[in-house]
Amino acid sequence: MELVTAALQGQRHALARLLSLIENDGREARTALSALYPHTGHAHIVGVTGAPGTGKSTLVNALAKEIRAQGKTVGIVAVDPSSPFTGGALLGDRIRMSDLAGDPGIFIRSMASRGSLGGLARATADVIKALDAAGFEIVLVETVGAGQSEVEIARTAHTTLVVEAPGLGDDVQALKAGLMEIADVLLVNKADRPGAAKTARALEAVIHQHTARRRDPHVWQPPIIQTIALDGTGIPEVLNAIYQHREHLLSTGMWEVQERARVESELLTVLRQELLARLQAQVGEERIRAWVGRIAQRQVDVYTAAQALLDKESEG
Amino acid sequence: MELVTAALQGQRHALARLLSLIENDGREARTALSALYPHTGHAHIVGVTGAPGTGKSTLVNALAKEIRAQGKTVGIVAVDPSSPFTGGALLGDRIRMSDLAGDPGIFIRSMASRGSLGGLARATADVIKALDAAGFEIVLVETVGAGQSEVEIARTAHTTLVVEAPGLGDDVQALKAGLMEIADVLLVNKADRPGAAKTARALEAVIHQHTARRRDPHVWQPPIIQTIALDGTGIPEVLNAIYQHREHLLSTGMWEVQERARVESELLTVLRQELLARLQAQVGEERIRAWVGRIAQRQVDVYTAAQALLDKESEG
Repeated sequence: MELVTAALQGQRHALARLLSLIENDGREARTALSALYPHTGHAHIVGVTGAPGTGKSTLVNALAKEIRAQGKTVGIVAVDPSSPFTGGALLGDRIRMSDLAGDPGIFIRSMASRGSLGGLARATADVIKALDAAGFEIVLVETVGAGQSEVEIARTAHTTLVVEAPGLGDDVQALKAGLMEIADVLLVNKADRPGAAKTARALEAVIHQHTARRRDPHVWQPPIIQTIALDGTGIPEVLNAIYQHREHLLSTGMWEVQERARVESELLTVLRQELLARLQAQVGEERIRAWVGRIAQRQVDVYTAAQALLDKESEG
Repeated sequence: MELVTAALQGQRHALARLLSLIENDGREARTALSALYPHTGHAHIVGVTGAPGTGKSTLVNALAKEIRAQGKTVGIVAVDPSSPFTGGALLGDRIRMSDLAGDPGIFIRSMASRGSLGGLARATADVIKALDAAGFEIVLVETVGAGQSEVEIARTAHTTLVVEAPGLGDDVQALKAGLMEIADVLLVNKADRPGAAKTARALEAVIHQHTARRRDPHVWQPPIIQTIALDGTGIPEVLNAIYQHREHLLSTGMWEVQERARVESELLTVLRQELLARLQAQVGEERIRAWVGRIAQRQVDVYTAAQALLDKESEG
């Protein structure tokens, strides 16, 4: 595939077109991904997540600049699940206009959700693979919001940064327990604001609780780093922690364990989608619509209907 | 099924046990849901969503009290996707301790994610069905966070409330476009804080833009209501808007259209899961693990592997 060859050779326009192809799915995307796949497995994938208002985008920006200053290449994938219907991509545009533009060692892609989380997770994973294959050494994946998307990203990323900020209110407290468990590195950003030290101490307490509970013998103790992304304070320390986490994963064999878990989850997702597509083709839209009508009228429940559809199909 | 009969008769302990049964899935859950299903379709399901810090829980509390004051019964489902690993249920506990406890016309259930969004969405939809069948006239479904979960809930709910609050920073702005599109009623909560009127005006502008873009001839204009959930200000108005939206859906035929879309999405999800379970049983864990190994070693990509697995299966 010419497009793939050109993208692998570092041609930016080819890569951009390839990513669009991949996002849109379809047969051509599959062919491209098959061709790309042997070239993957080299990038360090770093997820960056946290509640709104913590300054994630600025932080991703600062990290990318520091990575470039150290002579490494970096890809950025900004995932925006907040706009599933419009396909808006505010974050990507924001970053694109920033001081990172024009550097050939950096590539920024913003993703809009394709209506279902499954679709977004699939497309994001595939876009990351393409950036990996194209030779970007670190791929930063930023998600907006707080919810299931973080967990999906923690599964895709080797290292997950969770960004907090001082004084974001009670609900954010409630979110912490969940985010703590996916955090490999914890940041208290906007550390020049009042309450930063207090937030760091609170995180320390939660982290301590969680790591104490983990049964794994190779326990990684997530460091807590105070940053001011706007002026670069703490950014080299964050990058250092990212590298240390990579070393930890490799030396304990967890890198490979995670890789297999990631692959398995991906395989099952593809199988699920493919199986449904086959069933739909076999049974026909008409008959499925008839069952939907019967369920909507409370003549039959969804599980019984599914069973009936599957049994009929296996008879034929 | 005795448990179902008891729950339908309004026995609270039976309902609580039934919900646990449903959450844990399995064959018994399916049987229970089949028995419940003919009794569903009467409740008005209202989703309540918004970014952290907007005061959603307090608002749900206030709404429930107002609904009870009007003599209607209310179920509350608090969804907490922020803790996918621990199964924590902070919100539910918080509500449970509040002034709503002890009222037989109210039932509160908090859900923890079961590791995958699919699992959570399935369990939430089924718990809502059980509360519907048990006769609760309004079911309030609260989600924490901002992400894909809101969209899933918008699909389950007849009416979706989006809660905002003044002065939550830039990232929240970025979230708005996405949330706007699922909002049927917009609330500016904490309206006693500075900037409430400004936030309301900003929402008005965004809403105007979005409704102008909608092609549907039966356009619902989402009202924007300022509330102070803590002292009940604006709560009767919110409830009024919820009733008006229900009338709108019924009179335009959209109620039924939404119902069918909901049913179809549920049916496809069940089919997808069931098909995968059958394939796994047929192919065997061992062979799937072997393919995972080959993919992890970059010998084959995930799509080619899936294809191979499916083709072998259909040969056999």
